[in-house]
Amino acid sequence: MKIGVFFLGKTANSHYEAIIREYEKRLCRYVNLSIHTVEVKKKNLSISGRKEHETELLLQKIPGSSFLVCLDERGKQYSSPAFADLVSGWEMQAKKRVAFVVGGPDGHSERMRQRADLLFSLSKMTFTHDMIRIFLFEQLYRAYTIKNGEKYHK
Amino acid sequence: MKIGVFFLGKTANSHYEAIIREYEKRLCRYVNLSIHTVEVKKKNLSISGRKEHETELLLQKIPGSSFLVCLDERGKQYSSPAFADLVSGWEMQAKKRVAFVVGGPDGHSERMRQRADLLFSLSKMTFTHDMIRIFLFEQLYRAYTIKNGEKYHK
Repeated sequence: MKIGVFFLGKTANSHYEAIIREYEKRLCRYVNLSIHTVEVKKKNLSISGRKEHETELLLQKIPGSSFLVCLDERGKQYSSPAFADLVSGWEMQAKKRVAFVVGGPDGHSERMRQRADLLFSLSKMTFTHDMIRIFLFEQLYRAYTIKNGEKYHK
Repeated sequence: MKIGVFFLGKTANSHYEAIIREYEKRLCRYVNLSIHTVEVKKKNLSISGRKEHETELLLQKIPGSSFLVCLDERGKQYSSPAFADLVSGWEMQAKKRVAFVVGGPDGHSERMRQRADLLFSLSKMTFTHDMIRIFLFEQLYRAYTIKNGEKYHK
């Protein structure tokens, strides 16, 4: 199974970037992982126009056959062990590609939400983009350590 | 209102430490904030013994009059605007001190949970200690920007 993580724009802060790189390195022991960033260059768009444009750019980059997981505040929440079971389930179903997609500041367009195979929420709270990135990587890493019965500090 | 944040042990990773310091600096514009770390030196304790010992050390350090908020996976979840309302409410009730307490790897003892005025959960997921710290600071900062009607990136 390949996991692709799709972000809008580069990680702004070097400390967050370093934390992501560390988890990326650790995750590569368990899974074929790739990180993709999509740059949004158009300016002066309405909120809905920007969301549509972001979706357009993201869907161009995400392989069409991917099982698409959109991070969404209104999505389903999992405990960490339940998330580990979800990831294990994808592997057992022999999914080829899973894509995690983090939307822009106003969330995903309706089109992206319709395309999603799963709307997934890390928390009821709103976080910065950089923080969502490190949450997601930490949870992916935690899922693989749980799945493999390995010890990982809480 | 004074906010005290009580952690067990120092922040292990310098990148997380730098992120905390940045939010601490920003938060000082809004609130009298202090960070306290409690070092647990006893070893070879059972899980329940360690939790009791952690509680003992924490309660020695937390002013007795504090409104005590324990971070707890089983606690109540808030959206960021609801959390901002909660903080505003404390100020309107003229609470003198609010203490946020993050427990050890196995959570809080029953004694601490009984003493708590609020059990508060950031997410259903389990995160590392370092990560919980930056979540909490980010949400406190976000709460004050929401409360003050200021713009803060999502």
